[in-house]
Amino acid sequence: MIRIGILGYGNLGKGVESAIKHNPDTELAAVFTRRDPSTVKIMTEGVPVVAAADMASYKDKVDILIICGGSATDLPVQTPAAAKLFNVIDSFDTHARIPEHFDAVDAAARENGHIALISAGWDPGLFSINRVYAESILPGGATYTFWGKGVSQGHSDAIRRIEGVKDAKQYTIPVESALEAVRAGKMPELTTREKHTRECFVVAKEGADKARIEAEIKNMPNYFSDYDTTVHFISQEELKANHSGLPHGGIVLRSGKTGWNDENTETIEYKLTLDSNPEFTSSVLVACARALSRMYSEGMRGCKTLLDIAPAYLCPLSPAEQRAHLL
Amino acid sequence: MIRIGILGYGNLGKGVESAIKHNPDTELAAVFTRRDPSTVKIMTEGVPVVAAADMASYKDKVDILIICGGSATDLPVQTPAAAKLFNVIDSFDTHARIPEHFDAVDAAARENGHIALISAGWDPGLFSINRVYAESILPGGATYTFWGKGVSQGHSDAIRRIEGVKDAKQYTIPVESALEAVRAGKMPELTTREKHTRECFVVAKEGADKARIEAEIKNMPNYFSDYDTTVHFISQEELKANHSGLPHGGIVLRSGKTGWNDENTETIEYKLTLDSNPEFTSSVLVACARALSRMYSEGMRGCKTLLDIAPAYLCPLSPAEQRAHLL
Repeated sequence: MIRIGILGYGNLGKGVESAIKHNPDTELAAVFTRRDPSTVKIMTEGVPVVAAADMASYKDKVDILIICGGSATDLPVQTPAAAKLFNVIDSFDTHARIPEHFDAVDAAARENGHIALISAGWDPGLFSINRVYAESILPGGATYTFWGKGVSQGHSDAIRRIEGVKDAKQYTIPVESALEAVRAGKMPELTTREKHTRECFVVAKEGADKARIEAEIKNMPNYFSDYDTTVHFISQEELKANHSGLPHGGIVLRSGKTGWNDENTETIEYKLTLDSNPEFTSSVLVACARALSRMYSEGMRGCKTLLDIAPAYLCPLSPAEQRAHLL
Repeated sequence: MIRIGILGYGNLGKGVESAIKHNPDTELAAVFTRRDPSTVKIMTEGVPVVAAADMASYKDKVDILIICGGSATDLPVQTPAAAKLFNVIDSFDTHARIPEHFDAVDAAARENGHIALISAGWDPGLFSINRVYAESILPGGATYTFWGKGVSQGHSDAIRRIEGVKDAKQYTIPVESALEAVRAGKMPELTTREKHTRECFVVAKEGADKARIEAEIKNMPNYFSDYDTTVHFISQEELKANHSGLPHGGIVLRSGKTGWNDENTETIEYKLTLDSNPEFTSSVLVACARALSRMYSEGMRGCKTLLDIAPAYLCPLSPAEQRAHLL
């Protein structure tokens, strides 16, 4: 049994709890929270909710701690700190800051004889794995990552901060014609606008100037101004009924040339279609807990990413069973 | 520089030679052949063609030997024998016999201090990797493998053995409606007939009984009788003009449930679209040569499969570069 602790009980933490239920070789040891533990009700019976400040007392009761905080401010602090006490996993997803986060977690884990995994999930994570395989196999080629159709939390939040907006949901949508050109092996050069569109469902406050809100959204730098953006004003009831899920997904595509004179084109496509972004991410994290627990038993220490983990470590079957049934 | 030897110079061996040209950290050291070396003309200048019987004299000139023989009779003998002299890679693809092949190669490699990789390519190979990742991440679900549209060499050969057949090409084609049901997360139970159709292009000998040939194809056990099969009689010229390539590909799909009450469906799809099956397989083999050479340097020995290789080993970039640019 792999005893898993969860730090942070939001959408991702709840997803980890559900994923543990799906994996009979794992069990939930404790949920750690920065809130008052008496206010946090979890789904698993008989498992304690513990103040994050008391985490150290669980040092010998948790094999792997899965840290479910945000990348902006939580994880850069939480993961190196927790790696002093536990073997840890996070889903740090600020791509540009991965190298410094890696170094901080690696130092903390090594000094304390632990193993750590950062940036697990699907992007970074499964998409990264696929970029590495595809670029290694087809060195002469081009790689494309498309996201969606799915809800972008960051973009939804940005709309909610506009004056007169009561609530909002934003979908990122790949441009079908761009996808088709890439799938056909044409290796097009694509601008930001040519790859994705953005669709916004906005609940305006009573009496708010909708034309101004729409203009503010469409002209927002970084978030929307480089995209073709559609804005729909709907009621709060409609938003709740039709847009309360957190679906997401995306595609990594690479095509490259083979043959003595580059005469043939080969295309590799990896596609995720997810009803629940946090639940799928959590499912990756729990499979990684299995891998990390095995790698720790074999004596491995320090910080890893999914690129450093052989696929066999993630699978509940033994290597011989995998060769017989999955190879 | 990783010095690669090729044993066997057919479609796959030629593909490896082309893939080496695409990977600047690899070079071709020698081509070994069971034919008279003077009759084998290769594309790379200045590289010797050597009788397979003289392979031992290249023991110190080859870092990795890629064995390009057939799975039925060549590889079960060639790979264990060659693993006594070299670090070796093969693409053994008789799924049912992988465990015994693994054991034979593992013993030969370990006794002689070598590392070996068997069953590399795309199925087994990249498809196996994707089955393992997907089943590990979504334990409650169903996995599907579809092949094609592509040329099946074994089925084409089977048609050519029928009396009155001069030449033939057979395409395996996934059934679109089955694919759509799987993609939609419906997890259908599919019979052999419901997953693939077979399309045959046949050149009949002059005066041959086409109706009998068609009936013999459609009723051939194992190969065709469990499938909906279409037979087209065409001229040798037409076969050459329109069906001389070796395209292939396929799809691994898994969908599974997440959430406390299995309320959400997540779908993972991995798809290959290949102009040239042997050239793509070769491209995988050469990336694996890079991985194996690194693993050997780190002291690893014995037989591996792609499931045992962390993605980072395949990639020409350093782990730090991978984290910065591909993660």
